[in-house]
Amino acid sequence: MDTVLCIPNFSEGRRPEVVAGIVEAIASHPEIVVLDQSADADHNRCVITFVGPGEAVVQAAFSAAEHAARVIDLTTHTGNHPRMGATDVIPLVPLEGTTMSRCVRLARQLGQQVGERLGIPVYLYEEAATRPERRNLADIRKGEFEGIAREIGLPGREPDFGPPRVHPTAGAMAVGARLPLIAFNVNLNTPDLKVAKAVAKAVRGSSGGLVHVKALGMPLAGRSQVQVSMNLVNYVQTPIHRALELVRLEAGRYGAAVTGTELVGLVPVAALLQAAAHYLQLEDFAADQVLEHRLEAGRRTRA
Amino acid sequence: MDTVLCIPNFSEGRRPEVVAGIVEAIASHPEIVVLDQSADADHNRCVITFVGPGEAVVQAAFSAAEHAARVIDLTTHTGNHPRMGATDVIPLVPLEGTTMSRCVRLARQLGQQVGERLGIPVYLYEEAATRPERRNLADIRKGEFEGIAREIGLPGREPDFGPPRVHPTAGAMAVGARLPLIAFNVNLNTPDLKVAKAVAKAVRGSSGGLVHVKALGMPLAGRSQVQVSMNLVNYVQTPIHRALELVRLEAGRYGAAVTGTELVGLVPVAALLQAAAHYLQLEDFAADQVLEHRLEAGRRTRA
Repeated sequence: MDTVLCIPNFSEGRRPEVVAGIVEAIASHPEIVVLDQSADADHNRCVITFVGPGEAVVQAAFSAAEHAARVIDLTTHTGNHPRMGATDVIPLVPLEGTTMSRCVRLARQLGQQVGERLGIPVYLYEEAATRPERRNLADIRKGEFEGIAREIGLPGREPDFGPPRVHPTAGAMAVGARLPLIAFNVNLNTPDLKVAKAVAKAVRGSSGGLVHVKALGMPLAGRSQVQVSMNLVNYVQTPIHRALELVRLEAGRYGAAVTGTELVGLVPVAALLQAAAHYLQLEDFAADQVLEHRLEAGRRTRA
Repeated sequence: MDTVLCIPNFSEGRRPEVVAGIVEAIASHPEIVVLDQSADADHNRCVITFVGPGEAVVQAAFSAAEHAARVIDLTTHTGNHPRMGATDVIPLVPLEGTTMSRCVRLARQLGQQVGERLGIPVYLYEEAATRPERRNLADIRKGEFEGIAREIGLPGREPDFGPPRVHPTAGAMAVGARLPLIAFNVNLNTPDLKVAKAVAKAVRGSSGGLVHVKALGMPLAGRSQVQVSMNLVNYVQTPIHRALELVRLEAGRYGAAVTGTELVGLVPVAALLQAAAHYLQLEDFAADQVLEHRLEAGRRTRA
């Protein structure tokens, strides 16, 4: 089965009825399963997680974007999180039975529909990007809704699909394909924020560390500890264990030790099996040795 | 869903058509999925792995036992592996949505049917055992078919179900409930078999080590290495990582290091997630953070 995960972000986190309407637009597609939704009032933003077969995911994401364009007005929107559109960003993630290149094709298909039928300019990002400087979402979103409205006509800022001007109320949108993102935090037994910041700097790709790791040092309120808070954007090439062990190594330089860690939100099972296989030193482990995987495969063969 | 795993062992590993007939008797039950089968000519024994809802598993196991009693004759059976019956042993293992106590009830139900309808004496073992000295399968099977035929009338050897005499050709049978068994081997960078034997002795429960670990030291042909070969019979109480780290510690006493490990056959995903959570030092990890588990739960809710 061709299963695609989609985690669209919308610029609304204060009006529950608006969020519910967007979820409804997604869930009305019969092959779609909504896994999660969360709204944040400070960010004035919500994130909805859903899955389904590739074509159904494109249709559901389009319905959501169409609905959001009707009910969200960027000209009056405020919030802590950077944003450029009513539907701000739509990432597609390959799960079982599908590939990254399939998700890239689906992202282009979705982007074209949004551009042509909704009149919203679309930028393709990450694995779907059409030029290297558009891989990083933050670079595309620079200036946010207001800045992009002014600059979209300049060379290099033209969208991949849709008109060369922002939609008057729905703004612009990024559509892309990427691996599942893993949010992984490591706690250190020191109250010294400088240690967490130094370790984060050593570990993250942007300052010479592991290429697929983003990291920040932050205080851990109520614990007299600090935390290295990381996003792992490609767990296949940069696995969890390597990020953890590099944090441990760098923290040791300051006499600090790891007291514990946390995974925030959902994690693909492959990322955890990878960690188990590493630490258990397994020589020839195959995912089909997992009892439940064999069971699932057996049920599908029978169905 | 109430999913039970069943791994019956039959005293036939040389006649493929007989093994195929037993598999057919199991697979003829529509709710059953056969996951695996393997036959060994030296042991003259086969092992079939199948899953399904509890009641269907009992029916399929009964069909297999009935068929095996017709086609296997213990009076002419020879092989390296200890055995006491045509169907030698039937363990039931709780998987998703079910419990050990449910499997114990199902084992009793199956044992009663086999005893009353097939005239084969049945001993309940492991979690289904009715007395402490019957937990261990090896104790029940002592003397094998021939010895049990002589001793079954003696006090303490009476079966839990069925007649107080072995079936003339199908012998006797053990039926039980247990956790999934994990076969885990650890390789050491020394050719000295004495090291593997000493480490195995230190680690296994029978000589003072970890209670749910069985271990043997053996040479690793073609590698100039030795192996500590283990069966972990309760990974919940004695997880894989603890067995590995104790092997590492004891091997260090002789200057030997772990070069690699292997998991043989199927492993429950929970055992690997447990290893990942241990080594990654996760503080509050929950199995429903696994993306695929959430996805599976979502599909079931929708179905």
